[in-house]
Amino acid sequence: MRMTVRIAVAGASGYAGGELLRLLLAHPDIEIGALTANSSAGDKLLRHQPHLLPLADRQLQDTTAETLKGHDVVFLALPHGHSAELAEQLGDDTVVIDCGADHRLTSADDWQRWYGGEHAGTWPYGLPELPGQRDRLVGARRVAVPGCYPTVSSLALAPAVDLIEDEVVVVAVSGTSGAGKSLKPNLLGSEVMGSASAYGVGGAHRHTPEISQNLSAAAGRPIKVSFTPVLAPMSRGILATCSAQLKDVTGVREAYEKAYANEPFVHVLPEGFWPTTNAVLGSNAVQMQVTVDEDLNRLVVVAAVDNLAKGTAGAAVQCMNLALGLPETTGLSTVGVAP
Amino acid sequence: MRMTVRIAVAGASGYAGGELLRLLLAHPDIEIGALTANSSAGDKLLRHQPHLLPLADRQLQDTTAETLKGHDVVFLALPHGHSAELAEQLGDDTVVIDCGADHRLTSADDWQRWYGGEHAGTWPYGLPELPGQRDRLVGARRVAVPGCYPTVSSLALAPAVDLIEDEVVVVAVSGTSGAGKSLKPNLLGSEVMGSASAYGVGGAHRHTPEISQNLSAAAGRPIKVSFTPVLAPMSRGILATCSAQLKDVTGVREAYEKAYANEPFVHVLPEGFWPTTNAVLGSNAVQMQVTVDEDLNRLVVVAAVDNLAKGTAGAAVQCMNLALGLPETTGLSTVGVAP
Amino acid sequence: MRMTVRIAVAGASGYAGGELLRLLLAHPDIEIGALTANSSAGDKLLRHQPHLLPLADRQLQDTTAETLKGHDVVFLALPHGHSAELAEQLGDDTVVIDCGADHRLTSADDWQRWYGGEHAGTWPYGLPELPGQRDRLVGARRVAVPGCYPTVSSLALAPAVDLIEDEVVVVAVSGTSGAGKSLKPNLLGSEVMGSASAYGVGGAHRHTPEISQNLSAAAGRPIKVSFTPVLAPMSRGILATCSAQLKDVTGVREAYEKAYANEPFVHVLPEGFWPTTNAVLGSNAVQMQVTVDEDLNRLVVVAAVDNLAKGTAGAAVQCMNLALGLPETTGLSTVGVAP
Amino acid sequence: MRMTVRIAVAGASGYAGGELLRLLLAHPDIEIGALTANSSAGDKLLRHQPHLLPLADRQLQDTTAETLKGHDVVFLALPHGHSAELAEQLGDDTVVIDCGADHRLTSADDWQRWYGGEHAGTWPYGLPELPGQRDRLVGARRVAVPGCYPTVSSLALAPAVDLIEDEVVVVAVSGTSGAGKSLKPNLLGSEVMGSASAYGVGGAHRHTPEISQNLSAAAGRPIKVSFTPVLAPMSRGILATCSAQLKDVTGVREAYEKAYANEPFVHVLPEGFWPTTNAVLGSNAVQMQVTVDEDLNRLVVVAAVDNLAKGTAGAAVQCMNLALGLPETTGLSTVGVAP
Repeated sequence: MRMTVRIAVAGASGYAGGELLRLLLAHPDIEIGALTANSSAGDKLLRHQPHLLPLADRQLQDTTAETLKGHDVVFLALPHGHSAELAEQLGDDTVVIDCGADHRLTSADDWQRWYGGEHAGTWPYGLPELPGQRDRLVGARRVAVPGCYPTVSSLALAPAVDLIEDEVVVVAVSGTSGAGKSLKPNLLGSEVMGSASAYGVGGAHRHTPEISQNLSAAAGRPIKVSFTPVLAPMSRGILATCSAQLKDVTGVREAYEKAYANEPFVHVLPEGFWPTTNAVLGSNAVQMQVTVDEDLNRLVVVAAVDNLAKGTAGAAVQCMNLALGLPETTGLSTVGVAP
Repeated sequence: MRMTVRIAVAGASGYAGGELLRLLLAHPDIEIGALTANSSAGDKLLRHQPHLLPLADRQLQDTTAETLKGHDVVFLALPHGHSAELAEQLGDDTVVIDCGADHRLTSADDWQRWYGGEHAGTWPYGLPELPGQRDRLVGARRVAVPGCYPTVSSLALAPAVDLIEDEVVVVAVSGTSGAGKSLKPNLLGSEVMGSASAYGVGGAHRHTPEISQNLSAAAGRPIKVSFTPVLAPMSRGILATCSAQLKDVTGVREAYEKAYANEPFVHVLPEGFWPTTNAVLGSNAVQMQVTVDEDLNRLVVVAAVDNLAKGTAGAAVQCMNLALGLPETTGLSTVGVAP
Repeated sequence: MRMTVRIAVAGASGYAGGELLRLLLAHPDIEIGALTANSSAGDKLLRHQPHLLPLADRQLQDTTAETLKGHDVVFLALPHGHSAELAEQLGDDTVVIDCGADHRLTSADDWQRWYGGEHAGTWPYGLPELPGQRDRLVGARRVAVPGCYPTVSSLALAPAVDLIEDEVVVVAVSGTSGAGKSLKPNLLGSEVMGSASAYGVGGAHRHTPEISQNLSAAAGRPIKVSFTPVLAPMSRGILATCSAQLKDVTGVREAYEKAYANEPFVHVLPEGFWPTTNAVLGSNAVQMQVTVDEDLNRLVVVAAVDNLAKGTAGAAVQCMNLALGLPETTGLSTVGVAP
Repeated sequence: MRMTVRIAVAGASGYAGGELLRLLLAHPDIEIGALTANSSAGDKLLRHQPHLLPLADRQLQDTTAETLKGHDVVFLALPHGHSAELAEQLGDDTVVIDCGADHRLTSADDWQRWYGGEHAGTWPYGLPELPGQRDRLVGARRVAVPGCYPTVSSLALAPAVDLIEDEVVVVAVSGTSGAGKSLKPNLLGSEVMGSASAYGVGGAHRHTPEISQNLSAAAGRPIKVSFTPVLAPMSRGILATCSAQLKDVTGVREAYEKAYANEPFVHVLPEGFWPTTNAVLGSNAVQMQVTVDEDLNRLVVVAAVDNLAKGTAGAAVQCMNLALGLPETTGLSTVGVAP
């Protein structure tokens, strides 16, 4: 006998919401309840998510606490600033899993600086593969799903924090779905195809403090992060190139193999193999490779993730499993859709 | 209690083989046995299919009857010309599902003209959604999986064969994975990206007689096919634009809705929606829309399929299910991976 | 000694406007005057056309007759409905070359049906390679630049009008720049990449009557057109597959070679070669190949064009040359940017 | 009256050779002589470069000194290891411009380590925008065209060498044409599209010592380089993200503006604008932006170049101009082909 978990998704018309539903449709314990949106409320889901045929005739409802109430789990795939109030109205009977940024940062000052407005508080951070995080997620009623760049960057560097100096450089190539369905000229297909471009350069991207927070927590000392995101002509996927000066060049590979030996979703590739984003497309896996540039005594780690899957919606489902006491890997896969 | 079906895949290093394994890894009744290849025999699967992490350490074996024997089902994802001999050696204890062309055509003359060499005979044709085909697949020991273009073109036109004249025009835009991993200059990324090109123009493509065979069988009279495949800069997916002169413009939509009302994988979209290939990516669904150009009394059907999934490997799994008496949809999905 | 032609571009912030400026910057006789826009008036051009470095600091002005007056040539790259009034205010001293649809159609009824509103009248049609058109363009003060699909489709079929039946089928795969910079969800990079989709199916696309008009004029009898445009994941380029029933299968190739023997921009490829869109990217060339499907006695022509170049802006420059009595090929090239 | 320069291209069937010919066709002083290839000798150029219509009927000859002799300028677009012997046979009457790596490195030890075999010696280095290089190119009879990554990386960092510490980090996203037409599985369109991947990680790429050589020469002290190239799904273009610890955060922008104030091809964008590769596609321009991450006192420069144009063939033409005493910008443009 299996229990059935009734879930709702707020923000079901967007990319994160669509990926949540794609994964939840394959989850054996889930019953899909309310689907909500903002400007698209009233539409059939088919108009926004034509790939989700089993839900094609579902009607999008308004995103209100009334609509979301009464579900075992509510996933929020909303712009930041909305989750605290909704969560409060839903009460502790409902597990709330927030794919937005509101409750990721522990420092109210950081929140102020990077997002502005009042800090809504900190929820258990949904990256169980980081030291000490899994335990905080088991049985949690609230989860802050990490940002996509912090997920891959933190996993790529956390095993090495004791071996490196205090500053890391991350350049992460990303597909365009990370920017959502926003109607901006620079996201048009004609602009994106055949072109690479950087944005949020020089420490301006909001995921910078989140990466720093994760690595500093893992290191037990402040780690500074130089982070540059680069948009590439693909819909999904992040390939992060992460490097740092090494204090000691020995034991690097061992540190990674040990850190992830028992992790179902993080794979350190055998030597000679390098990750590609299409190998993790649609999957909850992170693939990475690690090496040392011996001319510079510099650690270089390259890691691939699907920004919508393990980078957002897959992590959300993984956290739901932990929160509910289900096996952590239920409904999730390490198999990508390639080519 | 479930039965476990032990399967082997010949041609496991290619795109069709990889897609078969991706789907079979998600099938609840399958145990994956031997994986074979030709020039890549001896390699670990990771080298060729880095997205199939659960099988990363599997070693590719030689493609021989000895290796393939003793499995309940053997999938052949090989160039044409190899399956008849292998199948004979495997005997009737083994269900053989051939993703190649060898046993699709009913006419030995057609085989001679389009492929050359001796015709290996005809096997039950793995497109259960065509009139009369499903029954021939239930319990079959041999199945010929259709070509990718014939799958989508036949499904797009079969419901209308009684309403149209005897000639149809199909122009089908395809992703490059249909050409396999062949190392040809025109398949290089630098050539493919940003470019569209036609090939096999003027009735030269081998899938032409197969489409004609399917439509003629459905119609009970000869249907001629003008078929042009166009390569587009995407890895997967076929969008087929199919048209024909109508003898009668009434009842078109009804004919399609009736034909596919109970088909789990073929979806006639509501009016006003048009199919896109990314909505079926990785899924076993065919999405289509049908209209009548009233200035010409011409039927126009647009249909989308994933050439590797429902167009090859998904159809193979669907046919395996039918052959073994499993529910036809087991392990298959109508949910695409988008965006 | 060369004359200098002073030009203005209305709609300089869009794709057609940008391509006009790219070509005009390479034209030896041109001095670039006013650049106008609508909502972007006041911006520096760099913000909208970062590839046009020599004009980066130019400021976009309002699109008014005052701004455009006093130039030798004014190019209009505007939505339809604006050119008649502007042209009247500019007077006959100024050559007006309209990249929009307003003055392409000869039939007021067609205009009413396909565009709505009052027909603004017909201007000389800017496809000099069609029979009889070049003479009408020499010295013209007004030119209607053809639509991108009609350009390639008409050139692909005009030489055969005496050999074919009265109905043609055109399926044309296009890059996304043809849709302009409109902020529509289906034009976002995340939606477009990896996906093909049809639109305007069943005779609904506004270029249909324009193709029919061209072919009917060339044939001297009505030619009906089944036209389906397909969006593919590339920024530029159209590949049109055009077919028609042949009355007579002899003389096809000769008809094409004769029609285009002296045309500088239309190239019938040697047998065995098929056009690709990247071979004409950025160029004013049309590449095509022609064959006969002998099983059906059906003509199949495949033709490639850059929708923004020969499909819009290149044609506009070619027409300007003719209008001004300059050599027709000045500033234009048959060399594509590939790969 | 203009002089006419008769040129030959060795390696005319490849991407660099094709781009050379594209640019040379637009150069007012050039007459195109012999075109040579290796395995493709005997073919018409159309088969390999269908975008170069004016040369379509040219036949590829064998790559020998006999064929190349008697031209004013010979461009070598060959794998490394071939140019020294050819150049010797051609004599000093012929200007030889080598797009390969043979004569770029000044250190024989570096050559040994990174390429192997005997060092063929050092030729004037074809990056005139680096301090002191232009003078060495004026009137040169031999030129070593820089690698594509070193071009963009060196230009991005050279102005800052006095302001930074001794180590720089470069992560450069590149289109696939940089890998040439090699028939390797990982370069197939199906593998490349939708995917990003790193290669030559950890100091393994041969362009590493060339970047280091350039920056060390500019600095007058050794500069170490951590270089990671990333393949992205586009045919052309490199976007390099370059960073380094600053000794002094003042004067950064001024240093860049001063360095490139009079350079026709290197553009430091106004504040608030960031480079994209499509803005330089097909052009000889480098676009860059520079900022300081104030949390880390780290310089971050993002620069875009077309790897085939300014990154290879455009630089070769620019160097030819300098070598022959022509205006440096003849036949070259800062106008990209976008979108």
